[in-house]
Amino acid sequence: MSRIAEIYRAIAAAERPEVFISLREALDVERDYRASVAANGPLAGIIVAVKDNVDVAGLPTTAACPGFAYPPTADAPVVAALRAAGAVVIGKTNLDQFATGLVGTRSPYGAVRDSRRPDRISGGSSSGSAVAVALGFADIAIGTDTAGSGRIPAGLQGIVGIKPTLGVVSTRGVVPACASYDAVTVFAADVDLADRAMAVMATAHGPRAFGGTAGRIPLAAPEQPVVAIPAELPELDDAWRAAFADAVTRAQACGMSVKAVDLSAFLAAATLLYGDALVAERSEAVGDFLAGVDEGGAGDDRAGVDPTVAGIVSAAARFSAVDLLRAHRKLDGLRTEATAQLDGIDALLVPTAPFHPTIDEVAADPVGVNSRMGTYTNFCNLFDLCAVAVPAGTVDEHDGSTAQFGVTFLGRTHHDALITDLARRFAGMPEQQRAWPERAGAPAVELAVFGAHMRTGPLTHELSSRGARWVGQVRTAPWYRLVALETAPPKPGLIREPGEGRGIRGEIWHLPPDALGEFLAALPYPMTLGKVELDDGRWVVGFGCAADAGESATPLDTDRWPLPTSPR
Amino acid sequence: MSRIAEIYRAIAAAERPEVFISLREALDVERDYRASVAANGPLAGIIVAVKDNVDVAGLPTTAACPGFAYPPTADAPVVAALRAAGAVVIGKTNLDQFATGLVGTRSPYGAVRDSRRPDRISGGSSSGSAVAVALGFADIAIGTDTAGSGRIPAGLQGIVGIKPTLGVVSTRGVVPACASYDAVTVFAADVDLADRAMAVMATAHGPRAFGGTAGRIPLAAPEQPVVAIPAELPELDDAWRAAFADAVTRAQACGMSVKAVDLSAFLAAATLLYGDALVAERSEAVGDFLAGVDEGGAGDDRAGVDPTVAGIVSAAARFSAVDLLRAHRKLDGLRTEATAQLDGIDALLVPTAPFHPTIDEVAADPVGVNSRMGTYTNFCNLFDLCAVAVPAGTVDEHDGSTAQFGVTFLGRTHHDALITDLARRFAGMPEQQRAWPERAGAPAVELAVFGAHMRTGPLTHELSSRGARWVGQVRTAPWYRLVALETAPPKPGLIREPGEGRGIRGEIWHLPPDALGEFLAALPYPMTLGKVELDDGRWVVGFGCAADAGESATPLDTDRWPLPTSPR
Repeated sequence: MSRIAEIYRAIAAAERPEVFISLREALDVERDYRASVAANGPLAGIIVAVKDNVDVAGLPTTAACPGFAYPPTADAPVVAALRAAGAVVIGKTNLDQFATGLVGTRSPYGAVRDSRRPDRISGGSSSGSAVAVALGFADIAIGTDTAGSGRIPAGLQGIVGIKPTLGVVSTRGVVPACASYDAVTVFAADVDLADRAMAVMATAHGPRAFGGTAGRIPLAAPEQPVVAIPAELPELDDAWRAAFADAVTRAQACGMSVKAVDLSAFLAAATLLYGDALVAERSEAVGDFLAGVDEGGAGDDRAGVDPTVAGIVSAAARFSAVDLLRAHRKLDGLRTEATAQLDGIDALLVPTAPFHPTIDEVAADPVGVNSRMGTYTNFCNLFDLCAVAVPAGTVDEHDGSTAQFGVTFLGRTHHDALITDLARRFAGMPEQQRAWPERAGAPAVELAVFGAHMRTGPLTHELSSRGARWVGQVRTAPWYRLVALETAPPKPGLIREPGEGRGIRGEIWHLPPDALGEFLAALPYPMTLGKVELDDGRWVVGFGCAADAGESATPLDTDRWPLPTSPR
Repeated sequence: MSRIAEIYRAIAAAERPEVFISLREALDVERDYRASVAANGPLAGIIVAVKDNVDVAGLPTTAACPGFAYPPTADAPVVAALRAAGAVVIGKTNLDQFATGLVGTRSPYGAVRDSRRPDRISGGSSSGSAVAVALGFADIAIGTDTAGSGRIPAGLQGIVGIKPTLGVVSTRGVVPACASYDAVTVFAADVDLADRAMAVMATAHGPRAFGGTAGRIPLAAPEQPVVAIPAELPELDDAWRAAFADAVTRAQACGMSVKAVDLSAFLAAATLLYGDALVAERSEAVGDFLAGVDEGGAGDDRAGVDPTVAGIVSAAARFSAVDLLRAHRKLDGLRTEATAQLDGIDALLVPTAPFHPTIDEVAADPVGVNSRMGTYTNFCNLFDLCAVAVPAGTVDEHDGSTAQFGVTFLGRTHHDALITDLARRFAGMPEQQRAWPERAGAPAVELAVFGAHMRTGPLTHELSSRGARWVGQVRTAPWYRLVALETAPPKPGLIREPGEGRGIRGEIWHLPPDALGEFLAALPYPMTLGKVELDDGRWVVGFGCAADAGESATPLDTDRWPLPTSPR
């Protein structure tokens, strides 16, 4: 049976009609799948489910509100980019209406049930997308995230969710929830596939995402990252706390230093998203539509408006411009406080969801439970942090069932590559050879290093602590040799001279341009940087040594580190 | 007679009681002045007038509204920084109430009259500050600028006004006008003094101004700048157009290339500041105060509320949060359009004020005339541009009188040093040795260059086009010599070797760190960069050459450029 047929059989067998709002015909998907495999693009044969607030040409966009539905004229740019790379759209997934919610129950298309424990919620708002991946209906799925909608369902479904820095992925062709804070996200079973997809999605917006608006964009995580964890863990019971403690231990085992920080400024910002005038963003997005429905009779079955969502959005209309300005000042103040907490910190590690409620519990208190779900997610987009949610084991619940536990690495604006690296290490995945900020146009320059700055050398931290990314091994052209410089510790100096040898083994790193400038400024005599010829004929910036130091130095007959003359 | 006594005599003789709201006792100022001269700080003996919406300890802050007045407990940080550098506060100056206006007539302390033609307006809102400098009552004056308040009066009074990038100078201790767009500015008779003052004011906020929020911060203007001018010149009559054409000719004579661009996105943004919900910022700032006055009776003489200002602020309360969000989206769209117009452009050159009305003309149409005054200023802070307004000759008006004509150089966020350089060149001032972004903490690294990259060399543009700033001449330690490298064109290679000579003459430049990284990435073999020892014992990053190229090269007996072996 073909892969596509297997997927459609699984969908039929699962009896989860609430997952998809539109499911394409199997024959159409099969045809696209074959074309994709033949074209062999970077996402060849990858099946993608798309949250139904993102435009896919040929399928209606409903935002989980039948009365709101419209036929899009074109793919959203992010969908177009995925399709161009080979991804095959299987259908459009259910969501909390207008992406307003973290629960997955606020939809006239049905509450999306947890993939493992159907009495529980899926998490939302990207509920159908997360469950589609968890149940194997798709390899990846597109979500959106304003307050945690791309992370909470990843956490509850035991999968990966990447929420990039705002603006890195285009939100054109996406129904806004809070236009200032909306991001397009991706779900996948593992970090590697999510990262591959994000490399394609980020290019949908292109280099302008990095144009003059950010400081240094790290291309990788440092060798010895410092990760902040919350000093307090509100909303987690003892079993969930134990799971988080295990995750922290795992992070430490992966080489991360851990530092407890006061998260109160973060948590206070979280309350602003719904509890203050910032919620007016939701009124801006769909308030006019809902007001129109109201005139025709609120709760009208034809429109299919969810009463909880309608309540939130209509209450949001009451705020004045001055209220909003004051909320922005509060947020600015909290951001300053929060930023101060992150001094010397590479990333923040938090539980993704603090607990996993039943559908009945949410029905009993739809706003209260939803709000508590967002404890560790709501602040992220308000501060323009980026986030990667990853599975982190399971929790034995009081009722004897087993919950998925997830954690999220959060990074500063445009530190997406850094936190993706941390998530990879946490997940035990092999070192990343790809950094999607570079593919999306983040500035980078190449540097060839020999000896002490190589990955096994004692000075490699001078690169990795500056956001540099190891790219691969290289060899110089044959007409280079190494000499032992009279430095302490002894360093090898690379010298170009006539003659033929094996060439010298080295490594290529990518650095943010300002990091190369700083690195050069810190480089002591007699080391120099200039163009070095590689064995493939390319000339790249690399290490050399001052002419006078090279003349007086002793030849070396090795390019292995540590140098044999070194006492280490 | 002492300098201070002369100033107080000039103030008395001028009969301009409307300029100062508070004037300190001459004896107090004299005492401070002597202490300042003795302490010999960077602003020793400089007399500063402070706009009366900026706190100065010991003097009330009125914002030109007697009913609003309060006694500040401390100097605003910007005032404290100026005083610490030696500046002596003489008094607090009149303004358009709550800094709402560009005319200088909206104050119960009297309409501030033009320094030369008393039937005309001074321009505002920093009216008293500009006139105080124009009439020699102070060397420098502090203004504030939301929509042009630090530029319009500079233009009309024939003096210089610097409006820095938002956040570079602290607005703590300043009565907000539109808190999101307010900047503290400085006036002086010439660019050099204004720049000296700004170097001190910028440090009031410190390095955090540049923390991770901007792209490359140029430290100087490029050698061959491209300056955009408006393709259309609304609001200027023929005589004022001719003055602008003369200014453009002068800019070209100073080495600037000029390119006409469509300013319509800029001008459209200008209308948003008062004509849309952005004006709610003014309601946020002082709406509660004015509402309180209203309850006690609007137009109450005791409160001294200006009716035009009260009308603007109270009308601003009507906007909803959704209105404000929609205005922000419009502004974002216009910023994108405007940014596209600036592709390949270093700065924008516009008339500062488009005409110079009489006080009666403003009284007849206070809102309309004010709005037209801001044609070339209103958009600036909304797009977070920086600006330097400089005098540019005079205009013969129809009534036979002579108007001051001014132009403004506008630059991108954090391009303050670049546009200050252009203003210096335009004003015919000597080359700048100081860049206040560096003093305020903008990142910079040092580079020593020899030969072709020196200011007279053919490759100097490789530095100046990357935002580098020439700092000064240096000489290497005696144990360096130059060799003629076998390059085309021939380049000198710097080699360190035992022996004693005169050392090699070179130059120090400061570069943004990413510019050094890019410069290195573009540097061809056999040039290298590494540490070079100077004759004062310092080691700085500088040019060298690959060991093999140095060995085979011919010694040079000169360090003058062009090299004698060059056919140029």
